[in-house]
Amino acid sequence: MTKGILYVVSGPSGVGKSSIIKSAMSKLEGFSFSVSYTTRPPRPGEVNGKDYFFVDEKTFNKMIENDEFLEYAKVHGHMYGTSKKYIKEKINEGMNIVLDIDVQGALNVVKKMPKETVLIFIAPPSYSELKKRLMNRGTEKKEDLIIRLNDAKWELSKINEFDYLIVNEELKEAINQLISIFIAEQIKTERVTEHLGRYSFFKIEEE
Amino acid sequence: MTKGILYVVSGPSGVGKSSIIKSAMSKLEGFSFSVSYTTRPPRPGEVNGKDYFFVDEKTFNKMIENDEFLEYAKVHGHMYGTSKKYIKEKINEGMNIVLDIDVQGALNVVKKMPKETVLIFIAPPSYSELKKRLMNRGTEKKEDLIIRLNDAKWELSKINEFDYLIVNEELKEAINQLISIFIAEQIKTERVTEHLGRYSFFKIEEE
Repeated sequence: MTKGILYVVSGPSGVGKSSIIKSAMSKLEGFSFSVSYTTRPPRPGEVNGKDYFFVDEKTFNKMIENDEFLEYAKVHGHMYGTSKKYIKEKINEGMNIVLDIDVQGALNVVKKMPKETVLIFIAPPSYSELKKRLMNRGTEKKEDLIIRLNDAKWELSKINEFDYLIVNEELKEAINQLISIFIAEQIKTERVTEHLGRYSFFKIEEE
Repeated sequence: MTKGILYVVSGPSGVGKSSIIKSAMSKLEGFSFSVSYTTRPPRPGEVNGKDYFFVDEKTFNKMIENDEFLEYAKVHGHMYGTSKKYIKEKINEGMNIVLDIDVQGALNVVKKMPKETVLIFIAPPSYSELKKRLMNRGTEKKEDLIIRLNDAKWELSKINEFDYLIVNEELKEAINQLISIFIAEQIKTERVTEHLGRYSFFKIEEE
């Protein structure tokens, strides 16, 4: 059984990450999103273990103490984290996991699982284009906009630490590029050689 | 201008390499086959510099002496070689070049241009399947068949030295995998970061 891969997709807020990821995943089999742990209470219809693993703050803090998270962050007053054990189990079952997280989180994940992780950065065509997109949303307060743009500067400066760079200039092309990364990484020789036995290349002598 | 990539596609004889490569290339722009040097006389309609660079044996041997080839080989009494200068020029122009050569040649090429080369191995689903395919062709003499199968053994033992492994079990899937490699390699961060200037990520301060 070939092991799965942890694909971490990241990039500045407003770059169109989520829709690229969803479209790419819908075209392939054997890919699923990671299920996060959270202290946020479940919303109607949300299922524990499917949408999130819902835990109380005490449990979450215990998990932090025990170094059980690949990454975690506080968003709007609630904690969200990715369990190392959960990801390792899925990968060992041969499942490919996709993580849609911020740049800081992405860099933390790869430090803890360098061999299993592929880092993908989705960037805007330019910084001024990102500024325009965020301003056109019209939903951001001026202070929030300034924070997001400052975050983006730092995030864009980290591109070098990622494996792949997708520039979201044309949505269809960006989706196609993400699909190509998903497929190409799976057939890297370094990932499959331990499983070459199934092609019986190494059973030649006995035939 | 982003540099091109040299994609070297290899694998045992009878594995279906050529048709996979042609189909994949027909779907993409900016890809072309390498034009080889040869001592074989031109056939009617063949154009010098397009189909081959036609040279005499003296010139070819001089080029070998001057270490001008990435790889060369004798096939049916004629010499064929890939010029280092030609490949470097094309790559510097931003063209992606595809080389369809044997495993020995592929390993020679990557030694001479490790940074620019991506090595792709196309394998049969199994050794016995390759044997069957070669026998079903019916065109091979028994001695030739034995030579090809022995070559294949050695070739299959070199898979570990390649970057990617495509197993040609289902033609459509194999073509799709080759296209994915072509695309994904082009957006590797290590290849594009020297050109990030054009996205103006590094011109933020001046804005």
